[in-house]
Amino acid sequence: MSAISATPTKNMMLFSGRAHLELAEHVAKELDVTVTPQSAYSFANGEIFVRFEESVRGSDAFVLQSHSAPINDALMEHLIMVDALKRGSAKRITVVMPFWGYARQDKKHRGREPISARLIADMFKVAGADRILTVDLHTAQIQGFFDGPVDHLFALPVLADYIKSTRPDTNFAVVSPDSGRVRLAERWSETLGGTPLAFIHKTRDPRKPNEAVANRVVGDIEGRTCVVIDDMIDTGGTVAKAVEVLQKEGAASVIIAATHGVLSGPAPERLANCGADEVIFTDTLPIPHEKRFANMTVLPIAPLLAEAIHQVFEDGSVTSLFDGNA
Amino acid sequence: MSAISATPTKNMMLFSGRAHLELAEHVAKELDVTVTPQSAYSFANGEIFVRFEESVRGSDAFVLQSHSAPINDALMEHLIMVDALKRGSAKRITVVMPFWGYARQDKKHRGREPISARLIADMFKVAGADRILTVDLHTAQIQGFFDGPVDHLFALPVLADYIKSTRPDTNFAVVSPDSGRVRLAERWSETLGGTPLAFIHKTRDPRKPNEAVANRVVGDIEGRTCVVIDDMIDTGGTVAKAVEVLQKEGAASVIIAATHGVLSGPAPERLANCGADEVIFTDTLPIPHEKRFANMTVLPIAPLLAEAIHQVFEDGSVTSLFDGNA
Amino acid sequence: MSAISATPTKNMMLFSGRAHLELAEHVAKELDVTVTPQSAYSFANGEIFVRFEESVRGSDAFVLQSHSAPINDALMEHLIMVDALKRGSAKRITVVMPFWGYARQDKKHRGREPISARLIADMFKVAGADRILTVDLHTAQIQGFFDGPVDHLFALPVLADYIKSTRPDTNFAVVSPDSGRVRLAERWSETLGGTPLAFIHKTRDPRKPNEAVANRVVGDIEGRTCVVIDDMIDTGGTVAKAVEVLQKEGAASVIIAATHGVLSGPAPERLANCGADEVIFTDTLPIPHEKRFANMTVLPIAPLLAEAIHQVFEDGSVTSLFDGNA
Amino acid sequence: MSAISATPTKNMMLFSGRAHLELAEHVAKELDVTVTPQSAYSFANGEIFVRFEESVRGSDAFVLQSHSAPINDALMEHLIMVDALKRGSAKRITVVMPFWGYARQDKKHRGREPISARLIADMFKVAGADRILTVDLHTAQIQGFFDGPVDHLFALPVLADYIKSTRPDTNFAVVSPDSGRVRLAERWSETLGGTPLAFIHKTRDPRKPNEAVANRVVGDIEGRTCVVIDDMIDTGGTVAKAVEVLQKEGAASVIIAATHGVLSGPAPERLANCGADEVIFTDTLPIPHEKRFANMTVLPIAPLLAEAIHQVFEDGSVTSLFDGNA
Amino acid sequence: MSAISATPTKNMMLFSGRAHLELAEHVAKELDVTVTPQSAYSFANGEIFVRFEESVRGSDAFVLQSHSAPINDALMEHLIMVDALKRGSAKRITVVMPFWGYARQDKKHRGREPISARLIADMFKVAGADRILTVDLHTAQIQGFFDGPVDHLFALPVLADYIKSTRPDTNFAVVSPDSGRVRLAERWSETLGGTPLAFIHKTRDPRKPNEAVANRVVGDIEGRTCVVIDDMIDTGGTVAKAVEVLQKEGAASVIIAATHGVLSGPAPERLANCGADEVIFTDTLPIPHEKRFANMTVLPIAPLLAEAIHQVFEDGSVTSLFDGNA
Amino acid sequence: MSAISATPTKNMMLFSGRAHLELAEHVAKELDVTVTPQSAYSFANGEIFVRFEESVRGSDAFVLQSHSAPINDALMEHLIMVDALKRGSAKRITVVMPFWGYARQDKKHRGREPISARLIADMFKVAGADRILTVDLHTAQIQGFFDGPVDHLFALPVLADYIKSTRPDTNFAVVSPDSGRVRLAERWSETLGGTPLAFIHKTRDPRKPNEAVANRVVGDIEGRTCVVIDDMIDTGGTVAKAVEVLQKEGAASVIIAATHGVLSGPAPERLANCGADEVIFTDTLPIPHEKRFANMTVLPIAPLLAEAIHQVFEDGSVTSLFDGNA
Repeated sequence: MSAISATPTKNMMLFSGRAHLELAEHVAKELDVTVTPQSAYSFANGEIFVRFEESVRGSDAFVLQSHSAPINDALMEHLIMVDALKRGSAKRITVVMPFWGYARQDKKHRGREPISARLIADMFKVAGADRILTVDLHTAQIQGFFDGPVDHLFALPVLADYIKSTRPDTNFAVVSPDSGRVRLAERWSETLGGTPLAFIHKTRDPRKPNEAVANRVVGDIEGRTCVVIDDMIDTGGTVAKAVEVLQKEGAASVIIAATHGVLSGPAPERLANCGADEVIFTDTLPIPHEKRFANMTVLPIAPLLAEAIHQVFEDGSVTSLFDGNA
Repeated sequence: MSAISATPTKNMMLFSGRAHLELAEHVAKELDVTVTPQSAYSFANGEIFVRFEESVRGSDAFVLQSHSAPINDALMEHLIMVDALKRGSAKRITVVMPFWGYARQDKKHRGREPISARLIADMFKVAGADRILTVDLHTAQIQGFFDGPVDHLFALPVLADYIKSTRPDTNFAVVSPDSGRVRLAERWSETLGGTPLAFIHKTRDPRKPNEAVANRVVGDIEGRTCVVIDDMIDTGGTVAKAVEVLQKEGAASVIIAATHGVLSGPAPERLANCGADEVIFTDTLPIPHEKRFANMTVLPIAPLLAEAIHQVFEDGSVTSLFDGNA
Repeated sequence: MSAISATPTKNMMLFSGRAHLELAEHVAKELDVTVTPQSAYSFANGEIFVRFEESVRGSDAFVLQSHSAPINDALMEHLIMVDALKRGSAKRITVVMPFWGYARQDKKHRGREPISARLIADMFKVAGADRILTVDLHTAQIQGFFDGPVDHLFALPVLADYIKSTRPDTNFAVVSPDSGRVRLAERWSETLGGTPLAFIHKTRDPRKPNEAVANRVVGDIEGRTCVVIDDMIDTGGTVAKAVEVLQKEGAASVIIAATHGVLSGPAPERLANCGADEVIFTDTLPIPHEKRFANMTVLPIAPLLAEAIHQVFEDGSVTSLFDGNA
Repeated sequence: MSAISATPTKNMMLFSGRAHLELAEHVAKELDVTVTPQSAYSFANGEIFVRFEESVRGSDAFVLQSHSAPINDALMEHLIMVDALKRGSAKRITVVMPFWGYARQDKKHRGREPISARLIADMFKVAGADRILTVDLHTAQIQGFFDGPVDHLFALPVLADYIKSTRPDTNFAVVSPDSGRVRLAERWSETLGGTPLAFIHKTRDPRKPNEAVANRVVGDIEGRTCVVIDDMIDTGGTVAKAVEVLQKEGAASVIIAATHGVLSGPAPERLANCGADEVIFTDTLPIPHEKRFANMTVLPIAPLLAEAIHQVFEDGSVTSLFDGNA
Repeated sequence: MSAISATPTKNMMLFSGRAHLELAEHVAKELDVTVTPQSAYSFANGEIFVRFEESVRGSDAFVLQSHSAPINDALMEHLIMVDALKRGSAKRITVVMPFWGYARQDKKHRGREPISARLIADMFKVAGADRILTVDLHTAQIQGFFDGPVDHLFALPVLADYIKSTRPDTNFAVVSPDSGRVRLAERWSETLGGTPLAFIHKTRDPRKPNEAVANRVVGDIEGRTCVVIDDMIDTGGTVAKAVEVLQKEGAASVIIAATHGVLSGPAPERLANCGADEVIFTDTLPIPHEKRFANMTVLPIAPLLAEAIHQVFEDGSVTSLFDGNA
Repeated sequence: MSAISATPTKNMMLFSGRAHLELAEHVAKELDVTVTPQSAYSFANGEIFVRFEESVRGSDAFVLQSHSAPINDALMEHLIMVDALKRGSAKRITVVMPFWGYARQDKKHRGREPISARLIADMFKVAGADRILTVDLHTAQIQGFFDGPVDHLFALPVLADYIKSTRPDTNFAVVSPDSGRVRLAERWSETLGGTPLAFIHKTRDPRKPNEAVANRVVGDIEGRTCVVIDDMIDTGGTVAKAVEVLQKEGAASVIIAATHGVLSGPAPERLANCGADEVIFTDTLPIPHEKRFANMTVLPIAPLLAEAIHQVFEDGSVTSLFDGNA
């Protein structure tokens, strides 16, 4: 006899960086697993060290990290965990990034710029990632930056269901805060049942050429509850201005909805005071208490992530989950 | 003495596939070179053979091919030429694709789809391409699909200058034919001096839920000369419908402007009869006589390509050419 | 508990491009599976789109496409399917190419030529292929062009068994139609029981230096049933000339046998009228009705392919199938 | 004529991240160039953006960044600059990292750990680095982590020359602060003219098995000026303990010399008060005023870096510079 | 039904090159498998041919070869076996190299040298190795040369247990034969219960500058049983000199212990006559009878290798085996 | 000023392994350079060490090594030299292998075999080779194994010119010693002016089925001077048998001509006594005195190699040299 035979098993293990442990715990609870214990600490000069406290040999590893501020620490920790899994003989490594860091730098806007979103994809590839699971990319083309499978989840149903159920019988209009999100606004419009669509046109008024830049609403929003949508809100400036213009142009009321609450610097104050009735996010990124305000709602993303992880592990295909993306 | 020294020279050589020889000849003339002679033929079963008739050793090779129909033949010929240059010891290979084939498949629109635009980038990389020079990508993110430098030229100035010079003192509005090109329309609006902006919203009318899909104009176009813009026009259906709706909504007149004239199937007839005053393309793709019609204008792209090739060869940097993309 | 365990299963799925659906259906029937349903269509400019209608996650995917004319369309469809499988999370992707396109361009015959057969291998690798299954390569060295396992099947037993069973007690001679297939002819000679061997020498007659090229038979074929063999027949010119010369030199009769019936342009007419008693192919490539003629025989390759796919899926080893190539 | 010829030139350009601009300016001054101007800023969530303000096409780019705290920001900025240079068509990219971040994690000390120093090498490779120039690696084997040329400079001559010139006619002993740096200490011993060698053995005393860990001096240092050497000093604990033990064992006086002054947390206070006569570093890492203390000396590394950059640019070979490493 | 399902099995297969068949047989016996039969022979010009006599499809292959003299033949045979496994469709290939050839060339000691230990890693990667299992690397950093998991076993417990059990109640001192192995000696010291530590300092005596190089013992060894340790012993010169110096300085007796017995040229004679009481190796490398001498002890490494192979196959984690390296 | 400019120079440097220094010296003389001095030696266990004694920075390096017995040592030395050149910053590395080792294993002849010729190509690629220059590959397809330019030189003109000039007015026939070299024989036939062609058919005689294998001449050679050709002669068995059969069948006389004289084991004696008038080789491999015999002629290959190196360095194109392969 020249060989030993055995029946293989597959073992799902869940790992989490330190950026958003609460989300990882929530996902773990949904999956009925525990986050794999590890030692992770930062040296005084910022170098990060990670060591898993259980064997990861042969595991089907899902490594979750939110790319939240300080984002470069979150990224390096994520990459180092992937390297440790590769060298520790994990069988398959799925990188779970609810928010894909540097997604906004997805092209050279002008010459001599980096394409950092591609760099992120390549760094995870070289570290050992086999696949990526992410939510609401800044542009869907970013999927193509990774040389391997990318499961791209949509939070739109989570956000839209909440809005529809809390505001029945409302006349909505969906508004893109600039010219680059009109396609996304159109998808929202369909989900909310075919509402009117509008966007904010940032422009020099051609009739008053010497005046400064003006924001104009293109589209019909008068008397309607405007849902200003975006994939992410960082400093909140664009979206706060949109609310102001919409109110001036006769909106009945304004809601803001976005998947990723980056919420840097003045964002919480701006959003709290911009006049919006409600500001809705998911918790793909951690939103600490000091950034929360009265009319903010944070919806949990963990059920969506957990279901997707389960499907990936089981090689299943819940088409509705991925919106046809199974 | 253990070494021989010499001063190197660099030699620009221009190569062309058979898809759009007229363009290659025009570029060659602008550069004051000749297209390198080659044997290229297709076997009866469609296999393509290419052999260069001059040595390509050490050359700085620019290989131009338009990805026009039949596009897979054009692509394979392009790839085979790159392979032959690599194996024939060209020093640097710049792939010049005025139109990037399969650019529309730049993401998975739904699950279980390919990302063919990334596949194209990878195939040229594996064949031996060092860099790519292209014009008006369907989405700018496609730059990031290639692992190397991509020089992305904009034809907008060529098209807009023509419109401005032939129609002085005109009240323009720029119109995106669907929700996905509003950002591009905004850039046109700026170039034309801050015109109003509009787009066509393809929607079920929420007030008449049982009726079929309708196209509505979002934005103010009444009494204006509408410039319907796009990166490419394939079968022409979307753009022809846009003209119809614009005229119904009170446009003074309509012009269509797009960089790439794919012009498949019914496109020439549709465009000729859709009511547009003028339909303007560049010749990034060949537009044969049988596809031309009375009010079509085709602007030459060769001067832009030649200037870019010259800059790449000389390591120069004409920022205005690349719109800051030097 | 930090992990979920499960016992994995493996699922064979069969996919087929549109070039030779009949063969795929035949293979599916032999395997007792169905070809996975998909949407596949070509845009007006020739761009191909493919989407699978069932989840392919975790599958052991076998993707069959014949590289028949128009070959570049067949190739691109094949590559795009592989890309879609990779991005759709197939576990292992075996590319089944009964005929390896561009196999004839397996070396630089002269300088400044491509090696297209290697390019094909690299393109499938970069698209995501893990392994290749093919039949009767133009030269066996092509196996080495792919960085991974290549299962190389031989159709010779299929063809030779047919000839032996339909022509018992015949005095055969095996004839290579040129100097490059003598080794293959030798293998045929062994399979047919040690027959004489000959080849056609295309030459200027050294004794008549001013005369044109002549074809001479080298080897003893007089009074014998000559089996002219080749791996593929494209335009049929070489093989038709071989029949003519053999008959002039006293062959009792002539049979032609080749694995791949490319049959471009004048091939059907040439072969029908060249004087051969029978012309035998397998159906690695589709041979439509209009290319068939009275004395043509087409043997099914599906049983061989199905058996090989089954062995690959089961990690089995039927040495006789692969002729020692298990 | 089918080609244009020109004589190429090569252009050295120097780039610097924001971690240690002072060093970059010093290097630039030594080379008589200016640091290429760029826009570099961090978004509120920590994402870094870089854009060069001059064309980098065809340049021989040297990109300097000190991997100082906060190290992950320094690293990401360095990587993003390399990506921008690659996509901006730099001809050759030399990454200058005076201190190689994460160099201490150069092996798995125990199972399930990363090898972060290799990950760093791979990330720079995938970003586009052609070569690396670095100073005093934690272990010389790290050179082998990069797939390309690594020029490894030694600061030992700079440090040793200073010590010899400021302390003529001194009886030195060279001391490694632990068992892992004895080889380095031996090289110092040679450079200082063949001094005795010692190291600190951290051990349980075998004769007093119940007592705690003790530091013992192995080697003869009594009455001598001990030079405690290391490649880097981070928190300073090990080296401060070494001074204490050496003084207890009869050292005449103690000097500390190390290339890289990481100087995290309590290090400045520890070193200032540990009893050492002088603590000597180079400025491979920035040492801000608040970390400096009375008996600290910081020697400039810029002359060594500038000379090496000049040699790399000129393809020269100053063997003494690289200590035979030309 | 579009798919066939099956439950996969995993099959461990053990392969061995011809360099140290005895070890392979021993490992096989420990695992209760047989070494897979193969044809392996060398052509007259030294080219090596290998063919497996059983199907290796889908196997979990462990390929063992000792990199013993003539080492380049052993290496090429090892690489060719890996290539044959890859092309023969093995599922996973673990390269078992008890001694990593060329490990001493793990850095450029001076300029213009190779880093051969990295080259070895890359060659196995390109041949098809998925992972490496090795024993006592010359430096642990070599793990990082391979882009994949490296299981690094330690023979120290095997050697130290033998010494402790055969010499109870002995006063040991552990001695590094030069300045580069002091860290290893420290680990030995801990394992033997906290013994004193010493090393041999090869130096010009600073007090007698005109005299030749001298070897001095640094550390306290008088009256003790010195254990001179190393990872490998090649020609034995350094270690024999160490014994001589230790005896002169008052050692009670001397033992030599090393994992790898390279034992080139004069080594057996030198070691037999150097004055050491016992010289202890493992059999990671074959030690033929003609190299053995009276006071040599060779401990079997097969149990350690077999246990590790078993753990890798079962995805287990015996932390003590790998010394925390599971 | 932000950049320093300079005019680059290119420097050809010639390197040689130790396998065939005489050939390297001859090539150097033809090129009017000297072989770059280096330290190269083998450790007692066979490990090879190489260090160049001059800077190789920026050089256009040509590294020559004959893959002669002991071939694995020659290969490893060649690979290590390439690694050292890569790490020493050579600008371009051309591997000159007059004889491509392991070329005979260019396909799997049966299952579970390696494709060692491809492995060789990949190992040189991973070591750092940019291009390969070689002579008379066993099969031309091997060019395609390397991912980069391969310049494939033909020695046929050298051999044929010698034969024609020493034997004017002779009636030649060209004979392939087996069925696999008939194409090569045909090329010889053309070069010698259109001679008859024959080959040796190793077969069971179909008319005498119970008898053993027989060698039969296929083709007309009676009364002619037979030139038995091959790319290489190893043990000489096949070719010696060919001579015997040819003489029995009435050849006037027999000459043997082959590019590569591997000449293992019994080859010299066999060839000396086989009855051939003359046995002609080139010196792509060293042929030491003890392998030479009376009627052996060895033609120098250095002029061909030197001319090719010169052309590669100068990016020239002497089409006749490469037989159209410039």
